[in-house]
Amino acid sequence: MSFFEYFSRKKNNSASIAKERLQIIVAHERNKLKQPDYLPALQKEIMEVIRKYVDIDMDCVEVHLDNNGNCSVLELNVTLPE
Amino acid sequence: MSFFEYFSRKKNNSASIAKERLQIIVAHERNKLKQPDYLPALQKEIMEVIRKYVDIDMDCVEVHLDNNGNCSVLELNVTLPE
Repeated sequence: MSFFEYFSRKKNNSASIAKERLQIIVAHERNKLKQPDYLPALQKEIMEVIRKYVDIDMDCVEVHLDNNGNCSVLELNVTLPE
Repeated sequence: MSFFEYFSRKKNNSASIAKERLQIIVAHERNKLKQPDYLPALQKEIMEVIRKYVDIDMDCVEVHLDNNGNCSVLELNVTLPE
């Protein structure tokens, strides 16, 4: 699955949600399978960077990690405090 | 423009590109206009985190920053060395 297929799978469901949100997507498209996947480690460090700018409640972070063929996608969805 | 509209605008053009790639997208959907936008500062720090894991040539990084209504989207496209 390519980056673009991943993103185009998304449904437009944001109209019903008025909260302030931050979404971080890191997609790694590899040309060889079985390379080490560093996205889980990256996730923690990216969250630390973002916490310098906004006050994030870790209970309000949804994490998804998808591996599909040669494409790994890390998705972080953060609902920000009002 | 919501996150999902942004992503669904993407065309599937990856079939022609066999290189190893990394794509980072940070989307901030605000509930008020005129809040400070910290995405440009975040960009530099996220690149520094990623450089701990992969050797990135900064000439191979494309940066796009979109502001549209209450949604700011930072997109980093990195072609990784072979």
